[in-house]
Amino acid sequence: MRLGLDIGGTKIDAVALDDDSAVLARVRVATGFGPDAVLRNAQSAALQAAEAAGGSASSLGSVGIGIPGVVDAEAGVVRHAVNLGLEELALGGILAERLGAPVRVENDVNAASLGAYHLLGLAGSMAYLNLGTGVAAGFVNDGAVWRGARGTAGEIGHIPIDPAGIRCACGQVGCLETVAGGGWVAHKWGGDAPLPVLEVFDRADAGDERAVALRAELIGGAAAGVRILILTGDVETVVIGGGISNLGDRLAEPVRASLDELARGSQFLGSLELSSRVRLVPAGEPVAAVGAALSGPRQNTKEPSWRS
Amino acid sequence: MRLGLDIGGTKIDAVALDDDSAVLARVRVATGFGPDAVLRNAQSAALQAAEAAGGSASSLGSVGIGIPGVVDAEAGVVRHAVNLGLEELALGGILAERLGAPVRVENDVNAASLGAYHLLGLAGSMAYLNLGTGVAAGFVNDGAVWRGARGTAGEIGHIPIDPAGIRCACGQVGCLETVAGGGWVAHKWGGDAPLPVLEVFDRADAGDERAVALRAELIGGAAAGVRILILTGDVETVVIGGGISNLGDRLAEPVRASLDELARGSQFLGSLELSSRVRLVPAGEPVAAVGAALSGPRQNTKEPSWRS
Repeated sequence: MRLGLDIGGTKIDAVALDDDSAVLARVRVATGFGPDAVLRNAQSAALQAAEAAGGSASSLGSVGIGIPGVVDAEAGVVRHAVNLGLEELALGGILAERLGAPVRVENDVNAASLGAYHLLGLAGSMAYLNLGTGVAAGFVNDGAVWRGARGTAGEIGHIPIDPAGIRCACGQVGCLETVAGGGWVAHKWGGDAPLPVLEVFDRADAGDERAVALRAELIGGAAAGVRILILTGDVETVVIGGGISNLGDRLAEPVRASLDELARGSQFLGSLELSSRVRLVPAGEPVAAVGAALSGPRQNTKEPSWRS
Repeated sequence: MRLGLDIGGTKIDAVALDDDSAVLARVRVATGFGPDAVLRNAQSAALQAAEAAGGSASSLGSVGIGIPGVVDAEAGVVRHAVNLGLEELALGGILAERLGAPVRVENDVNAASLGAYHLLGLAGSMAYLNLGTGVAAGFVNDGAVWRGARGTAGEIGHIPIDPAGIRCACGQVGCLETVAGGGWVAHKWGGDAPLPVLEVFDRADAGDERAVALRAELIGGAAAGVRILILTGDVETVVIGGGISNLGDRLAEPVRASLDELARGSQFLGSLELSSRVRLVPAGEPVAAVGAALSGPRQNTKEPSWRS
């Protein structure tokens, strides 16, 4: 059995997959804060997922982990996962020892990319456009994640698209993230709604002008992200995921319409058929946890069933 | 022996490579205009290169061709090569019959990418930033060209970077090409110098304010191209090529300085060490022709020597 853990800012989403990569069980536990809590809860989530799938601690095949921050996949080390209180943690090595199973650590966006690719049954090339607090992308080609030469592929949120834009937290001006990142939308909108982007969309539907403008900016930014990904990598499919993608077709339809509008102004863009290449991540599925499981150490081999 | 032909707007650059991919001979002939002329001159260039290398028409191993326009590499067909007077031409099939050797047709930027990768002795991942009349990029990873899902990877010249910019020929506004493309620089500069970008650099050195501004815009655009390529694909190396790269360090040094300036304003960008990843294409080398030869049908096999 392969376990996958998606360690997020508030919860750990854990799944157990069978030999055919179908989800046998899914559990969620609170993440906690700081290295001790994260390690303890990750271990607990893994064991609970194994147990829920009918397995035991002694029958774990492999464990894959998706986690935010800068991940050194080779060393199993995560750094600068600020929201989790982790400055530097040898997550892979420590959990492997505690669980008695091989553990692979992957950047959360890369894990989600692989999960989306699998759950959508895609082939060929795909980019995963993660619209969450920030904006980043992951790439999968023929089932393999492209991490880049130094593990930083897909940082498209920090490509500047407007010299007259606002200053990004990264120090540059007019980054894509400043128009398409949920953190910036929330900051511009103000208030303390638990789901500020949802509130912006709801208020825009109700005719609030400021909300309409913010929504249009977000939609335009998402379309710009799709355009960057296809003009650069010519991926066959761009899958929109991340927290904002929970808006579903309320997000995807206007993004496609925005791309169609761009195509009407440019025969060249039109020839690329951008809008028809946009997909939404499947709603409610544990995309990142499944991807983490698939990126685990035994990704390409059939394990013996733990039910022996 | 492997032959490589780089079919450009004015000349065909042809090389013959030995089994170790070293250049045995190089010849150049005028391209001509329209399908009949291009086919006749390509055939002639191939035979002259073979002869100059000591071979004969009956001993050609493989022929690779780099050509501008929209290339269907599978079918060997080139479309919309406007500067060559080619609307649609089954270049690969026709030349294969005339030469009695397998022929592979490749987009010129992809061919140059592969040639630069080989001539610079690179490993891992590379993007080739072609600064010519237009702006486009090619990708090579572990020696293989990434063409994209539909053969259009690397069209970064048409990523808009300034909503207040000028309208590009593609119909969009503020495309990277409108600041970093030689065609646009020439258009803005005016006059009829044979090498307008060189004239702009010379006049900028002499203190002409308009030239200084145009040069700064071009340098900034080239730096933006490097940033897009690394933020998206995290390639280890970006090689600057194309006609404008003939300026050598007069181009590369200020591009690196521009990237260093950006890094001083952004710790995040600084961590990516952009400027140290920029290389220039080797001066005077037949980069595209060599790459075309390497992309020929027998790219991965040692051919028997034609000297038998």
